[in-house]
Amino acid sequence: MSLLVVGSMAFDAIETPFGKTDKIIGGAATYISLAASYFCSDIRLVSVVGGDFPQDFIANMQERGCRTEGLQVRQSEKSFFWSGKYHLDMNSRDTLLTELNVLADFDPVIPDSYQSPDYVMLGNLTPTVQRLVIERLKKRPKLIAMDTMNFWMDTAMDELRKTLALTDVLIINDEEARQLSGNYSLVKGARTILAMGPKYLVIKKGEHGALLFHQNRVFFAPALPLEDVFDPTGAGDTFAGGFMGYIAKSGYHSFDNLKRGIIYGSAMASFCVEKFGAERLLQLDRTLIDHRIQEFVDLVQFDIEITD
Amino acid sequence: MSLLVVGSMAFDAIETPFGKTDKIIGGAATYISLAASYFCSDIRLVSVVGGDFPQDFIANMQERGCRTEGLQVRQSEKSFFWSGKYHLDMNSRDTLLTELNVLADFDPVIPDSYQSPDYVMLGNLTPTVQRLVIERLKKRPKLIAMDTMNFWMDTAMDELRKTLALTDVLIINDEEARQLSGNYSLVKGARTILAMGPKYLVIKKGEHGALLFHQNRVFFAPALPLEDVFDPTGAGDTFAGGFMGYIAKSGYHSFDNLKRGIIYGSAMASFCVEKFGAERLLQLDRTLIDHRIQEFVDLVQFDIEITD
Repeated sequence: MSLLVVGSMAFDAIETPFGKTDKIIGGAATYISLAASYFCSDIRLVSVVGGDFPQDFIANMQERGCRTEGLQVRQSEKSFFWSGKYHLDMNSRDTLLTELNVLADFDPVIPDSYQSPDYVMLGNLTPTVQRLVIERLKKRPKLIAMDTMNFWMDTAMDELRKTLALTDVLIINDEEARQLSGNYSLVKGARTILAMGPKYLVIKKGEHGALLFHQNRVFFAPALPLEDVFDPTGAGDTFAGGFMGYIAKSGYHSFDNLKRGIIYGSAMASFCVEKFGAERLLQLDRTLIDHRIQEFVDLVQFDIEITD
Repeated sequence: MSLLVVGSMAFDAIETPFGKTDKIIGGAATYISLAASYFCSDIRLVSVVGGDFPQDFIANMQERGCRTEGLQVRQSEKSFFWSGKYHLDMNSRDTLLTELNVLADFDPVIPDSYQSPDYVMLGNLTPTVQRLVIERLKKRPKLIAMDTMNFWMDTAMDELRKTLALTDVLIINDEEARQLSGNYSLVKGARTILAMGPKYLVIKKGEHGALLFHQNRVFFAPALPLEDVFDPTGAGDTFAGGFMGYIAKSGYHSFDNLKRGIIYGSAMASFCVEKFGAERLLQLDRTLIDHRIQEFVDLVQFDIEITD
């Protein structure tokens, strides 16, 4: 089945305790699409880049099954650029520089050839642009998932609420869930957020794993304990891409299947953090992914007879 | 089988964002013994209290199967007292006051009637006192587990290393594991710590769950997502008590059984934090515990066909 991916494609300059990069390729839609491409063979990318974005990287994505009719290339402009520095714990970071460039007035045009996608993943963008995408779809997809961030809660809460009301799955981190719900407790906060529209809520806790909430049910998946987290940039988007890519591949979204999606998303994120940027996501194959899924099984499986 | 528990029994005064207590009963050995008592019916308590420690609480513990021939009561002295205040995240706290009182010169005498215990749980005490206990055992137990804290790493590292070398299981939190190993990565740090003597390492991460390391194997159990964590005091000791109580009950410590122990320990800790102090640990029964174990199963179980 098909997956529409909308989000930024960008240059990032990253500093972690392990090193520092010049401008490397990043952006939510890049990570989402690459991660999803290991599961779903019909990815429909909507994004915008400047003339400075390398053509061979776009070719790489096409080879991995990403359609790019919806990728706008503005030759005379510059791509979105973000620069940030991680703290020692790798769970927090400072933004050093943000240059919106082509993203400033991004109009997410959906080519006719992209209609009607089965699944949709909206990377972090202004809630207004995210809603525009939903409104431009001729047919309601099976499942619409979205990411967002604190910045929009601070500056565009009304718009964000309108977009949330149209969304099936919200994927955010713990800090964002606390801010959005106004509740420190994630369990209580999840109830508040599920009342805003989404039927499913995924709360990402970085190295501490991820929670899936639906009605009164909750599922937890740990992050794989790694020797080193080299660069967390894009891990959340990679998680979302693996998650929605797996759902799009399987074509249904029962709670049990969403749980499997969370595990696949977590596995993809565990690869992402092993190298700077999106590099690792171009080097995987199904055997490597299956091996990592087995590590998750070994990590959490236990066998208790409740009546023993 | 029998479990020897050595540690403090104390008064605590606790302040959390949810409220404040006067002096209530606490102490590592209290939490460990009460949690273990739901699994193991032969608990041999070694501790010291002053004349101010309520006799009826000791009677409660005796009713729950805790033997107290090794509990020293110094009528003319005062019990150990700790006072602390938790921050909003409940993962960090400030110690406001510590009065060692009877604990200052605690000599852990092992009554003859306590020899030879099958299992041993050494609560946080000076490493020298912990080692004295091990040396006073006439027969090597099946498994010796110990807790410790940053303070001993700062002030008595040589003594701590000697004690670690005699121990089978070390149970500490993530911050302590980082300090003890000198490594920020818990995976790398675990290897360093396992080389110090313990065959098994449990790293407690509070609301983020717990990790069990043994050779090249690792197991992770989440903490149950709770609406509110009311008071985390004693949660780590309760975890250790549930863990070792379960192992002592079952009488063997294969890796799979230690995993079950981690789940039981986590379940007991999830009860502990629901009320101030050790109160909740006096109100449980097997049905409540089984119900909570089922919540852990539901929380983490998933079903993936690796070849799908």
